[in-house]
Amino acid sequence: MKDRIVVALGGNALGNTPEEQLHLVKHTAKPIVDLIQAGHEVILAHGNGPQVGMINLAMTTASVSASKTPEMPFPECGAMSQGYIGFHLQNAIRAELLRRDMTIPVATVVTQVLVDEKDPAFENPTKPIGSFYTKEEAVQIQSEKGYTMVEDAGRGYRRVVPSPKPVDVVEKETIKALIHQDQVVIAVGGGGIPVIKKEHDLVGVPAVIDKDFASAKLAELIDADYLIILTAVEKVAIGYNTPEEKWLSHMDLQTCQKYIDEGHFAPGSMLPKVQAAMNFAGSKKGRRALITSLDKASEGILGHTGTLITL
Amino acid sequence: MKDRIVVALGGNALGNTPEEQLHLVKHTAKPIVDLIQAGHEVILAHGNGPQVGMINLAMTTASVSASKTPEMPFPECGAMSQGYIGFHLQNAIRAELLRRDMTIPVATVVTQVLVDEKDPAFENPTKPIGSFYTKEEAVQIQSEKGYTMVEDAGRGYRRVVPSPKPVDVVEKETIKALIHQDQVVIAVGGGGIPVIKKEHDLVGVPAVIDKDFASAKLAELIDADYLIILTAVEKVAIGYNTPEEKWLSHMDLQTCQKYIDEGHFAPGSMLPKVQAAMNFAGSKKGRRALITSLDKASEGILGHTGTLITL
Repeated sequence: MKDRIVVALGGNALGNTPEEQLHLVKHTAKPIVDLIQAGHEVILAHGNGPQVGMINLAMTTASVSASKTPEMPFPECGAMSQGYIGFHLQNAIRAELLRRDMTIPVATVVTQVLVDEKDPAFENPTKPIGSFYTKEEAVQIQSEKGYTMVEDAGRGYRRVVPSPKPVDVVEKETIKALIHQDQVVIAVGGGGIPVIKKEHDLVGVPAVIDKDFASAKLAELIDADYLIILTAVEKVAIGYNTPEEKWLSHMDLQTCQKYIDEGHFAPGSMLPKVQAAMNFAGSKKGRRALITSLDKASEGILGHTGTLITL
Repeated sequence: MKDRIVVALGGNALGNTPEEQLHLVKHTAKPIVDLIQAGHEVILAHGNGPQVGMINLAMTTASVSASKTPEMPFPECGAMSQGYIGFHLQNAIRAELLRRDMTIPVATVVTQVLVDEKDPAFENPTKPIGSFYTKEEAVQIQSEKGYTMVEDAGRGYRRVVPSPKPVDVVEKETIKALIHQDQVVIAVGGGGIPVIKKEHDLVGVPAVIDKDFASAKLAELIDADYLIILTAVEKVAIGYNTPEEKWLSHMDLQTCQKYIDEGHFAPGSMLPKVQAAMNFAGSKKGRRALITSLDKASEGILGHTGTLITL
């Protein structure tokens, strides 16, 4: 049975340096290629937190140094991270396919994701990006550049940007065309480059779209059968790290909501994953979301492990 | 008559800052969309000299600063530049199409270009990249990192990397699949990310592939009818800037070679453009290369201007 599967990989699973990333993508490629070898269509989405943070930091540092490189807006840093991560991922998947005698094209599509400029998230920026500053520096940056700066867990002040919801994937027709040709596509890197509509133009905005929400939106738009959200654990738990801890094999939307209301899932961690899974599973009958670890993805698709979320 | 056209745009035409680039791509988009509106299939390739230089400089600067971002290899900087430039180009072309009521998907494919590790260029690095250093710094970098450092026109010492010839475009099947679906593709940015083959793996190498040679190779591989190499002038000249200056409307390969032998075309400027045009025109009967300016591309395709190079 051939399924169309969007796999969402975390940016933390890609390491903090190019050497680490080159090493880690080889590990990532194996379970992905297992799914392809089992006959599925695979679209790989990925996070970019550490990577876009590094690029943004380097660009900011160099722009105020003697090098005087230009200031680089945050959406452009996101576009760079898609090229950087896509290059390594497409290579690793291609090589793993070849090792198994499969010649299937793999490519990265630079992806923009439309957000609504009226999204309430723009009134309440929450995602910290870039360097840490002293309070005095933060006040100065805030007044000079209009950035929102907040104190971050006692480590200093950082810029925060909004995290709006994805509305559309601009390059969806390109992604579809490649899937129809049985190609492997890497897309919506880092949740996509966030853009808003200004008449015929799309304009980049400094924001971070949650990569699981963006992956769920992509999965919906390309009519995927499965959304696999990869995380550090094999299954979702309630009462996590308590004596009542219970690992879950299946939740319907009602159960998900009940556990969310009871506060079982940590914001910024398991909560957005469960919510993204609910978005996709709730978008049409038959659509299934699976939350599991990278190594268990293939078993999970066979129904042997992971937490399945359905309507 | 519908032609398949690869257009090669210079990196210098994209400016030195993100603001300049955003502005310039709007200008670039118009003649490109003229070709699409005339019914042609268009694949856009582009240079990245100033852009990858900026990214490389920022990454190097930040890596030796207090920010301590990781050192970024040159091929990865090239991948970043493809995301950065592709984001702006795909947006500008999309908007220009919409302004003319055309809804055609436009996308950037992160592109690797295979080079031969036995290419003699690797014995003789010639392309300067990154910062300027003093002689003492250059000697130290050369011994620490094994880079080749050379004196650059009295301005200091710089790293030089090889400029090998393109052998294959790794993502050609992806590019073809999108053309077959009548989509506009941006590819081989900066001449492509240079990679060599190590068994099943592709490994990035610090090198710069000439974007006109890479565009000619792509045009050949996807069986294009036309290669348009954009430059600052409307036509190629012999005796350029002399009393005998003569602008050329057409050259066959024999004439090209004669003028090359007579030293009419400047190395690093018009010479590689003429050579890339010859490569494509010579690859199969009927293939035509046109060297002209951005603004004259549409007229050139109609045979009204530019320098046509044919077998």
